[in-house]
Amino acid sequence: MKRLRCVLGYDGTDFSGFQVQPDQVTVQGEIEAALKRITGEEIQIHGSGRTDAGVHARGQVIHFDTNSHIPLDKWRFVLNNQLPDSIVIRSVEEVPETFHARFDVRVKEYRYCIDNNPVADVFRHRYADHIRFPLDVEAMQQAARHLVGEHDFTSFCSAKTFVEDKVRTVYSLTVERFGGEVWVTCRGNGFLYNMVRIIVGTLVEVGQGKRHPDELKKILAARDREMAGKTAPAKGLTMWEVVY
Amino acid sequence: MKRLRCVLGYDGTDFSGFQVQPDQVTVQGEIEAALKRITGEEIQIHGSGRTDAGVHARGQVIHFDTNSHIPLDKWRFVLNNQLPDSIVIRSVEEVPETFHARFDVRVKEYRYCIDNNPVADVFRHRYADHIRFPLDVEAMQQAARHLVGEHDFTSFCSAKTFVEDKVRTVYSLTVERFGGEVWVTCRGNGFLYNMVRIIVGTLVEVGQGKRHPDELKKILAARDREMAGKTAPAKGLTMWEVVY
Repeated sequence: MKRLRCVLGYDGTDFSGFQVQPDQVTVQGEIEAALKRITGEEIQIHGSGRTDAGVHARGQVIHFDTNSHIPLDKWRFVLNNQLPDSIVIRSVEEVPETFHARFDVRVKEYRYCIDNNPVADVFRHRYADHIRFPLDVEAMQQAARHLVGEHDFTSFCSAKTFVEDKVRTVYSLTVERFGGEVWVTCRGNGFLYNMVRIIVGTLVEVGQGKRHPDELKKILAARDREMAGKTAPAKGLTMWEVVY
Repeated sequence: MKRLRCVLGYDGTDFSGFQVQPDQVTVQGEIEAALKRITGEEIQIHGSGRTDAGVHARGQVIHFDTNSHIPLDKWRFVLNNQLPDSIVIRSVEEVPETFHARFDVRVKEYRYCIDNNPVADVFRHRYADHIRFPLDVEAMQQAARHLVGEHDFTSFCSAKTFVEDKVRTVYSLTVERFGGEVWVTCRGNGFLYNMVRIIVGTLVEVGQGKRHPDELKKILAARDREMAGKTAPAKGLTMWEVVY
């Protein structure tokens, strides 16, 4: 028996999220079905975390155990050959049996893309949220600074979150314009349900002049989801990197 | 009554091509339905040409006639508001009633994108054909030169083509590598059915070392579809620009 770790990307458009659900097409479901066809084994994979329906990944990490004798350097090709084009395995390596894709995460990075062109770029419509009026990126960046550090992020997670401890550490949160696109990049030790999308939705309201950058301090202190902005659409979000 | 000309882009992934077909979702069908909702009129649009199922457009051009009193500078917004995200109107202008989007075309440019990375870029899987072994772009460019000029392109169009005159002029045909992507750009006065995709499919076989660049001369002279390469997949092709 050996444990393999894979880094993979996926286009979340056509999936009902990462995690297996009955009668739904999910990333986990597709990978486990491919592993079944390849090895004959019933393999359960473990991801670094779930992603919601429509959310993409560039560097999701999974691990799984197998008794298969497929040589390590063949795994990537064999898997990609059995997977739909919307899931791509970028690397496969053998790891100690003590490694766990979820429990061992040290840092996660998410990026959110806003297409801020006056007229949407049609080739980005699946991967970016279009906002046609120019955003004040400077104000968004100012607001973002208030969220960096260790905080109770109750205001920035879905009211449906049942996790007790809502304290998380955001290592960095930047807002940058690249041509017609605005990218929000967030690194942290973990994220609550919908946390990045609610942060982005709130920063967008700052960028639209609807809120002052310093309001973020008050929102954070209130520990009340109602105080923050709307949840930004899933399609703009990409799980970018997971560090162990 | 006035005649309007629009430049539009679309993501061809989810359409059964440009032209209206019964019980199919098409670009023309979506635009005509939007025009009906906006103006109440039964408007027929005319495109510069059809595109097949899965083919994209960055600069398709259409025209249509309307009695609507919507101000010219509002049209783009009103249309985009009624269209799905996969179709974006880039500009709307009034043109003389003598203008015709199909008959007045002088030059058309198509671009074909090949994702030539060893592992596919998952965010390009809808817009590029993935070929994992490195293509010999220099050989492809050499082969491409034989197709530039006025030729009978019978070998490079679908056997299902019923057009009598298969002589067309290719003004330029270039093959360039940009990072991990290889782009084939073709400008001409008109293209036969599947012509760009068969040209690309044949150039790819040259880039894979399966054919010598000079074979293109023989293929052209044979006037036989069987002599050319496979038809490249639709998803890599984009109608880039139409010049009047």
